[in-house]
Amino acid sequence: MAKMKVVQFGLGPIGTESASRVWRHPGLELAGAIDIDAPKVGRDVGELFCQPEKTGIIVSNRAEEVLATVRPRVVIHTTQSSFKTVLPQLETIIRSGADVVSSTEELLFPYLRNPELAQQLDALAKASGVAVLGTGVNPGFVMDTLVLLSTAVCAQVKSVMAERFVDAGLRRLPLQKKVGAGLSVEEFRSRVAAGTMGHVGMKESVALIAHGLNRHLNEIRETIEPVVADRRLTTSFLEVQPGEVAGIHNTGTGLIDGREAIKLGLRMYVGCPYPHDSIQLESDPPISLRVNNGVFGDLATVAMLINCIPSLLVSSPGLKTMLDIPIPRHFW
Amino acid sequence: MAKMKVVQFGLGPIGTESASRVWRHPGLELAGAIDIDAPKVGRDVGELFCQPEKTGIIVSNRAEEVLATVRPRVVIHTTQSSFKTVLPQLETIIRSGADVVSSTEELLFPYLRNPELAQQLDALAKASGVAVLGTGVNPGFVMDTLVLLSTAVCAQVKSVMAERFVDAGLRRLPLQKKVGAGLSVEEFRSRVAAGTMGHVGMKESVALIAHGLNRHLNEIRETIEPVVADRRLTTSFLEVQPGEVAGIHNTGTGLIDGREAIKLGLRMYVGCPYPHDSIQLESDPPISLRVNNGVFGDLATVAMLINCIPSLLVSSPGLKTMLDIPIPRHFW
Repeated sequence: MAKMKVVQFGLGPIGTESASRVWRHPGLELAGAIDIDAPKVGRDVGELFCQPEKTGIIVSNRAEEVLATVRPRVVIHTTQSSFKTVLPQLETIIRSGADVVSSTEELLFPYLRNPELAQQLDALAKASGVAVLGTGVNPGFVMDTLVLLSTAVCAQVKSVMAERFVDAGLRRLPLQKKVGAGLSVEEFRSRVAAGTMGHVGMKESVALIAHGLNRHLNEIRETIEPVVADRRLTTSFLEVQPGEVAGIHNTGTGLIDGREAIKLGLRMYVGCPYPHDSIQLESDPPISLRVNNGVFGDLATVAMLINCIPSLLVSSPGLKTMLDIPIPRHFW
Repeated sequence: MAKMKVVQFGLGPIGTESASRVWRHPGLELAGAIDIDAPKVGRDVGELFCQPEKTGIIVSNRAEEVLATVRPRVVIHTTQSSFKTVLPQLETIIRSGADVVSSTEELLFPYLRNPELAQQLDALAKASGVAVLGTGVNPGFVMDTLVLLSTAVCAQVKSVMAERFVDAGLRRLPLQKKVGAGLSVEEFRSRVAAGTMGHVGMKESVALIAHGLNRHLNEIRETIEPVVADRRLTTSFLEVQPGEVAGIHNTGTGLIDGREAIKLGLRMYVGCPYPHDSIQLESDPPISLRVNNGVFGDLATVAMLINCIPSLLVSSPGLKTMLDIPIPRHFW
């Protein structure tokens, strides 16, 4: 069987790992690589993922040209979190006739913040005969897709709770900084006020669950609080003093007539004991599910992007959610 | 929105509970009920599920006539475990133009034991423009669908293990008898030899996982062993003496070149401590998932049948597996 041509659009940490995995995948052909970052442009993409031999794929900042030349079947898109920001990129890909699987967090359920733009993108995708999907691990799996599948064995579902406990101390430095490790509580709060703190996609996960369960929410609330260190914490990269911020506690709540019908929580901090993911359904039968140690984020996100490709390919054209495609599974 | 017409085909414990749930479902209309059991035929189906008012739906043993009169959109089929046995029933339903969701265990992956008959059924379903699906909890969810979705966050999967520990002492008497509680070890073994012992669908779960992961198995092995009581065990219905059988330990193993690539285990016995379901993937990242207390079987099976209806309705015609339909979720 001929390998399927894939272009990697975006070469940050997730995109570079994705390109590397596509390169080694028996069913996929890495046929192009796109990024706007000047130091990356013009280099063999294999250098970015420490591939000893040349791949022959040169990183380009001219998306339209690459797509027109390569004509990929699928583009893996990993650039930014905001749907509105990446919309022109998505349109360029769609017009080239390629399916898109994207890690853009808001694309998990773009109807929440930008219903009109989402409808326009859906129309464009249908007109171009391609399918578009936003996915990942969080959002995309742990606190939405897995939750929804868990409800399939329930005759009644009263409320849904999912929590994720992550030890940021075991993760990369950028992630430790992203959750605010080492900040003062004041600095943390001022960043929250400035909108530069918190997990993008929390509200989208709540909205996708509500959509899947056919519930009309009156409101989706989000809170972002610091987890404050009660002792000195040390990672390979930094130190957190008692009273400083160890990380973040982010919640998303979906309310129906004042009742908390959907409650999601993400605690991501240095020193978090017993990392795990938990799903608790107040349902008949009741469901209590636990992922021991949690789903490890970075590699799992890359895996999810690649593993969703076969499910996307058999789907009808349009803007899809995780609820519209056949159950994804490891693809090799 | 008009309610969707549903006929319940088969009124054993699962089918009766299903009819009851359809009757109360806001999106479904119970429009017919079929069973061959003489004491049930001619009665208002509501009597079977202790509904105080009459439903007006009279149980009939004439399937073709009911289907032709009612013309349901979907039939929930809950009669027997063997695909070959139920095939004429499925053909009758398909010819009537209704989609079918069935608890027939072998229908989870009928290509395993009867590939030609399965292909014929697929062709008939396509010609009739209807979709057909076999599902349930086990098989159908815990040891196959949930396992497969769990692999979606993995970049590599070396092996898959799923185990289910069920305390038969908390279940109905027929189930306690089905797992052999109170038998002598000799009697248990002679029933195994006669093929009347063991969980139908174990091999189908293994085969569905292999199919989903695109692995070619050289062999699927099944073992059925007694769990022997080491002390006196008492349930509401029976007593098991030390040395007698408390229940069953059933395994299914998928081998690739002698390696156990897929390993499923079901322990269902009186006195089983800490009932739970467990999924362990030898994968990157590794996944260890646990359903505390397990998914409680009977109601969950009924829920799964009903909850799969919306996913089946949007699918193209043909014989489907759980891997071909959009992710099912609670439907209300």
